[in-house]
Amino acid sequence: MELKVLKNILNANDQIAEKNRRLFREKRVLVINLMASPGAGKTTFIMKTIEVLKGKAEVGVIEGDVSSCIDTQKLSEAGIEAIQINTTGGACHLDASMINTAISNLPLERMDILFIENVGNLICPGDFDLGENIKLLVSSTPEGHDKPYKYPLLFTFSDDLVLSKTDLLPYVSFDTQGFEQAVRGINQKTEIFKVSGLTGDGMDRWAEWLLDQLQTVKSC
Amino acid sequence: MELKVLKNILNANDQIAEKNRRLFREKRVLVINLMASPGAGKTTFIMKTIEVLKGKAEVGVIEGDVSSCIDTQKLSEAGIEAIQINTTGGACHLDASMINTAISNLPLERMDILFIENVGNLICPGDFDLGENIKLLVSSTPEGHDKPYKYPLLFTFSDDLVLSKTDLLPYVSFDTQGFEQAVRGINQKTEIFKVSGLTGDGMDRWAEWLLDQLQTVKSC
Repeated sequence: MELKVLKNILNANDQIAEKNRRLFREKRVLVINLMASPGAGKTTFIMKTIEVLKGKAEVGVIEGDVSSCIDTQKLSEAGIEAIQINTTGGACHLDASMINTAISNLPLERMDILFIENVGNLICPGDFDLGENIKLLVSSTPEGHDKPYKYPLLFTFSDDLVLSKTDLLPYVSFDTQGFEQAVRGINQKTEIFKVSGLTGDGMDRWAEWLLDQLQTVKSC
Repeated sequence: MELKVLKNILNANDQIAEKNRRLFREKRVLVINLMASPGAGKTTFIMKTIEVLKGKAEVGVIEGDVSSCIDTQKLSEAGIEAIQINTTGGACHLDASMINTAISNLPLERMDILFIENVGNLICPGDFDLGENIKLLVSSTPEGHDKPYKYPLLFTFSDDLVLSKTDLLPYVSFDTQGFEQAVRGINQKTEIFKVSGLTGDGMDRWAEWLLDQLQTVKSC
């Protein structure tokens, strides 16, 4: 019974995700579904990306949270086009329908890249297609190198991965090589970007790769 | 429809939680449901607590994860009585039924305190009573001081709170006073324990408080 309800919900979600995808394609916007634990540094990473891309690409953001609009305020104060979603009934993930509503209030024609910052959660967002081009997982060094083993779904289904807060490496117990091996063990195709939103380390390589992805979307 | 199914699940859960609670009371075991984001330092905190309580209380652990038995192996290697639960269908929280099965395989009569380490998640575990005495939330400094605003449910319904990884305070942007104010704003009765599982800072105050709670359970 519970599984049947979930299956119906997912089928309905996929249909709306397809609508979103068509709209994103029509507008030639590169859409990134950013998923991570609470406090992994998603917003800082987005803001740093926008800083590095200045003059090269216009970026908008959809912020997903159970509650509050702290991140949207932060982005708006920095002059970034952003819209807040607070999930219905405190849900632990965004779904395609929430995105469909949000994008009707966003000037997609003025955007090259749209970041969707999902609710901080390493489990629930994995089941819900939003119509994005790239599922990007952010994993932060203080969380530890064992996360791929404990939360395999998101590590398996993410297209690419950001290891954030590398500036904390001298102070936390994190085996970078062990982490990369664990990731490669379940997902061989993923790119791994090691970055620090604080110092900016690793952001150039990430931005270059992102602009390549944008090129593909624009030329389709 | 979805809400009705959820309501039925929660009712069934509460009945089993009550059974667990009766059994824990009969065995005079203090049971702590430990909830946190992935990588907040739950296992390290439990291990440090056991170290500090050595000779004063016998402690057992139920480990909840979507996948793997890394933490149970770690605990068992340290000579700690521990049992692993991998959640059914990759669920994002433990429920009373999983605990009911697990405790039938644990020697409760030899334990004073039982830690239940819930799945790393700041949203889902909040809805599920396990039959515990104390809901303890662990929030780590690298996650940031804004978490009470973003995940209010767990911060509101937790009985007490641990701020972990205080050894990282010099290296992360974390406003301790702001965090405490945010917590107090939604939950005035909670105790806040600031600890470092790495250096042991703050563990004595926590252990003393825990032994007081244990005294209450033993004398009932």
